[in-house]
Amino acid sequence: MEVPTIDHLAIAVPDLDHAISFFRDIFGVEVTAPKAVPEQGIRLAYAHFENARVELMQPLSDQSPVGRFIARNPGGGLHHICLATGDATAAYSAAADCGLRPLSKPVKGHHGHPLFFLHPKATLGALFEIEEMAAGAKKGSD
Amino acid sequence: MEVPTIDHLAIAVPDLDHAISFFRDIFGVEVTAPKAVPEQGIRLAYAHFENARVELMQPLSDQSPVGRFIARNPGGGLHHICLATGDATAAYSAAADCGLRPLSKPVKGHHGHPLFFLHPKATLGALFEIEEMAAGAKKGSD
Repeated sequence: MEVPTIDHLAIAVPDLDHAISFFRDIFGVEVTAPKAVPEQGIRLAYAHFENARVELMQPLSDQSPVGRFIARNPGGGLHHICLATGDATAAYSAAADCGLRPLSKPVKGHHGHPLFFLHPKATLGALFEIEEMAAGAKKGSD
Repeated sequence: MEVPTIDHLAIAVPDLDHAISFFRDIFGVEVTAPKAVPEQGIRLAYAHFENARVELMQPLSDQSPVGRFIARNPGGGLHHICLATGDATAAYSAAADCGLRPLSKPVKGHHGHPLFFLHPKATLGALFEIEEMAAGAKKGSD
């Protein structure tokens, strides 16, 4: 599977506005405006470091996957790592072929890029997202 | 606090050799040789993506911090995020001044760079390491 770049690390948070201020005010990095993504049950923003991004996700409901994560971790916590690939369909096939457990076929994310997640039991206990990024745009747009 | 770069994301794993094979064989990235760091109670290796690294940590004992993490998460899991700064002493002072909770003063890591961790209750539930890296070497050496 060709996944040469870390696109982002995601942190689930109970209060997105607080998290945005935290990254802006304490770490001094640019953070995008919050955006609701109802199909994922979250509001999100991206903190832009020089070489990669941190995705900040607040659940819109207790019943979304991120809502259940926050129920278990009320203060927030590290949620997933996202690797960038040039071809999500090929990466999906490669993942399935080598015994990983994609949680779905590639689906379009809020930014229009195909992506899928891998079951953490097959990936060192860490949730991995694999997202298609055009070459030269691997740090992504929001 | 000047922390413009993500140096690495760390994953705690129960079996470092398996984790090294996983990153090499499935994701196709270069992984460094395992190294014991007894003062931290771990063996570690780094998976090198183009823009940042993943630190893989296996506990050497059940009583180390990473050993206790694996006791709670037997399959492994996301453990911390490390941001790079040009001056760990200045970052430590800035962190303490703005109400973060450094877990120690800067101490030299296994590679000789000063570093400290922040209590996750003050940082969105996610454990942050702040590590001093020379300018131009922010992706670090092993």
